Amino acid sequence: MTYLKRIAVAIIVVCLHLGSFAQQALWGGQNIVSPEVAADNTVIFRLHAPQATKVQVTGDFLPTQRVDSPYGKTDAPGVAGLVKGTNGIWEYKTAAPLSPELYSYSFIVDGFKTTDPNNVYLIRDVASVTNVFLIGGGKADLYKVNKVPHGTVSRRWYNSPTLKMDRRITIYTPPGYEASTKQYPVFYLLHGMGGDEEAWIALGRTAQILDNLIAQGKASPMIVVMTNGNAAQEAAPGESSLNYYKPTMQLPKTMEGSMEESFPDVVTFIDKNYRTIKNKTGRAIAGLSMGGFHSLHISKQYPDMFDYVGLFSAAIMPDKNAKSPVYENMDEKLKVQFSKKPKLYWIGIGKTDFLYKANEEFRKMLDEKGYKYTYHESEGGHIWRNWRIYLTDFAPLLFK
Amino acid sequence: MTYLKRIAVAIIVVCLHLGSFAQQALWGGQNIVSPEVAADNTVIFRLHAPQATKVQVTGDFLPTQRVDSPYGKTDAPGVAGLVKGTNGIWEYKTAAPLSPELYSYSFIVDGFKTTDPNNVYLIRDVASVTNVFLIGGGKADLYKVNKVPHGTVSRRWYNSPTLKMDRRITIYTPPGYEASTKQYPVFYLLHGMGGDEEAWIALGRTAQILDNLIAQGKASPMIVVMTNGNAAQEAAPGESSLNYYKPTMQLPKTMEGSMEESFPDVVTFIDKNYRTIKNKTGRAIAGLSMGGFHSLHISKQYPDMFDYVGLFSAAIMPDKNAKSPVYENMDEKLKVQFSKKPKLYWIGIGKTDFLYKANEEFRKMLDEKGYKYTYHESEGGHIWRNWRIYLTDFAPLLFK
Repeated sequence: MTYLKRIAVAIIVVCLHLGSFAQQALWGGQNIVSPEVAADNTVIFRLHAPQATKVQVTGDFLPTQRVDSPYGKTDAPGVAGLVKGTNGIWEYKTAAPLSPELYSYSFIVDGFKTTDPNNVYLIRDVASVTNVFLIGGGKADLYKVNKVPHGTVSRRWYNSPTLKMDRRITIYTPPGYEASTKQYPVFYLLHGMGGDEEAWIALGRTAQILDNLIAQGKASPMIVVMTNGNAAQEAAPGESSLNYYKPTMQLPKTMEGSMEESFPDVVTFIDKNYRTIKNKTGRAIAGLSMGGFHSLHISKQYPDMFDYVGLFSAAIMPDKNAKSPVYENMDEKLKVQFSKKPKLYWIGIGKTDFLYKANEEFRKMLDEKGYKYTYHESEGGHIWRNWRIYLTDFAPLLFK
Repeated sequence: MTYLKRIAVAIIVVCLHLGSFAQQALWGGQNIVSPEVAADNTVIFRLHAPQATKVQVTGDFLPTQRVDSPYGKTDAPGVAGLVKGTNGIWEYKTAAPLSPELYSYSFIVDGFKTTDPNNVYLIRDVASVTNVFLIGGGKADLYKVNKVPHGTVSRRWYNSPTLKMDRRITIYTPPGYEASTKQYPVFYLLHGMGGDEEAWIALGRTAQILDNLIAQGKASPMIVVMTNGNAAQEAAPGESSLNYYKPTMQLPKTMEGSMEESFPDVVTFIDKNYRTIKNKTGRAIAGLSMGGFHSLHISKQYPDMFDYVGLFSAAIMPDKNAKSPVYENMDEKLKVQFSKKPKLYWIGIGKTDFLYKANEEFRKMLDEKGYKYTYHESEGGHIWRNWRIYLTDFAPLLFK
């Protein structure tokens, strides 16, 4: 028996072998492809469920629908029915080609919402896991891994003397960083409520977007630092000493000002551990939703720290009853910040975002004071689709 | 309205808002806990599936069963039935407390095998995704994230001149590496067939095991390098320029000797980019299954490169018909390797592993030649449970 034949036999034996993940991979999987993206960008979803009486797919690639909710009529992701074919395989083909985008979806099998067993690409958001697929073209090509030089993504831990804990942090260093001796600018990129230090890498495609923008010469090579914005948390779910627990929204501790107060710990750590430009001309801060709130308050609290500020669908809700000194004297602090003329103060929001009005009021105030900012209004609402686009718009404006 | 009340309103609005992952997280999730590990380590699995007529759980925490297969009777993971309770929630409680271990499981809903929507912790192996949970205690405490100093895990890319491509690689640097000026030993840790540069981190819990062993003073601080052993592959599925595709076993290209031939590219890259001990006293290589095969051949092909060699359930199948010069003159190369007296040549295998006999023959040959090695025989077969244990046994023996 030749060597390769022996290997082939070995594989069959592995298949038969008990209890291993590998064996589950071979026997538990279904030998069908789902989703299948055709050349024209129509997409076919498939599921092998011979005993099911009804199979549906739901996701952000479908038109939204109006549904009843405890709060009245609201929008919800569309739902489409799959048709049962031979061999118990259900299928749904999109009515038309899909536009370029990173989409998410789930199956609903007899009313039970579940993942697609033929698609191993999953993204977690808070306590929910959905499958994803990518339609290339246009801006979505920036979300792909392309044949360009790749940066390094590190998960490491820093000590926060202010919060009195070791905390996990995700750091992107650009291609060429390790082989270079030069100093790099740093972009601090903050997540929203329910997120953590994995959010921008997984849902935001930050590494792919930066690799591609840098390769195209559109963005300067920069370090991107993705913190965990929940001051009570050591790390993302599953990565902390709490180990495997069911994640929940991190509300109570996030708005006490402790994230903002402790942020210089992060900057100190990065400046000590990386070859950085150690002044405001080499620092940017931006965040989505709660991260936009953090970026607003951190940048005005430390007006000499950042020359570039981005508020992506920011949760702008100044309120005199907020507990922390961080939120006090907002007018005075903004006055100081803008007197120092930040190179960029960028505000982006979608027309249907529930925070649109708060952002409109904030811009009105900035206008009245004569504070200069850049405004980008997009379609859509409070969704990752927009935040990825804002990142592709914002990053090229930095450190130029 | 106070600030916190406004935030609460905002969250409700987010919930109602359309198309976002966050909203899916809040509305799509079920407000139940599964799996629930009780204080005595019994475990309850729960699933909300009111329309289902039969719900089962299968996984490696259940006793195995004998089933029919195309190749005759074989072992398979056990299956247990859940009982439908009120509100459509199905439940199964283990008959007894479970021993410490990282377990994997899936639900079967009316014959459809699927993930647990209440457990966001998932591990991919080849084309299959299963949920995981961890029972602490004993060796399994080494798999947990504990309150100890944590190393850094980086995903970066190196160029292989031999393979003529940029390739992704996972690198663990121990706690204190960045702040130190000393040189560290390097442990090259290789995956098996179907795996990639994510396998040892995700399925093998390498970062947790090393953090814990180092904190306990049982292992020397060391760099751990986890390569992609499929020479035709740039990177793990989803991380290469192929983007999202359905993974398959990487058979044809793995056994041509190209991984072994190109391995010095990895060592050169690591020695250039990290503060390493740049000789064999500071280098170890080990791998599981195909990675054990690679470790065997790489260590004998480059007999001055590694002082520590580990074969974990190694696919030991020397054959004169193998194509590459790597596999030629095996006897002579082993003679050279052992004449240089490696500090450790470690062989570990489970009693029911399908590769047991091949390993037995190999050990017999080593015995006949008088080549010194350390042998560890465990219960069980060709499974990750064993490879995690072998790692905890092997790492403390290195660089002492």
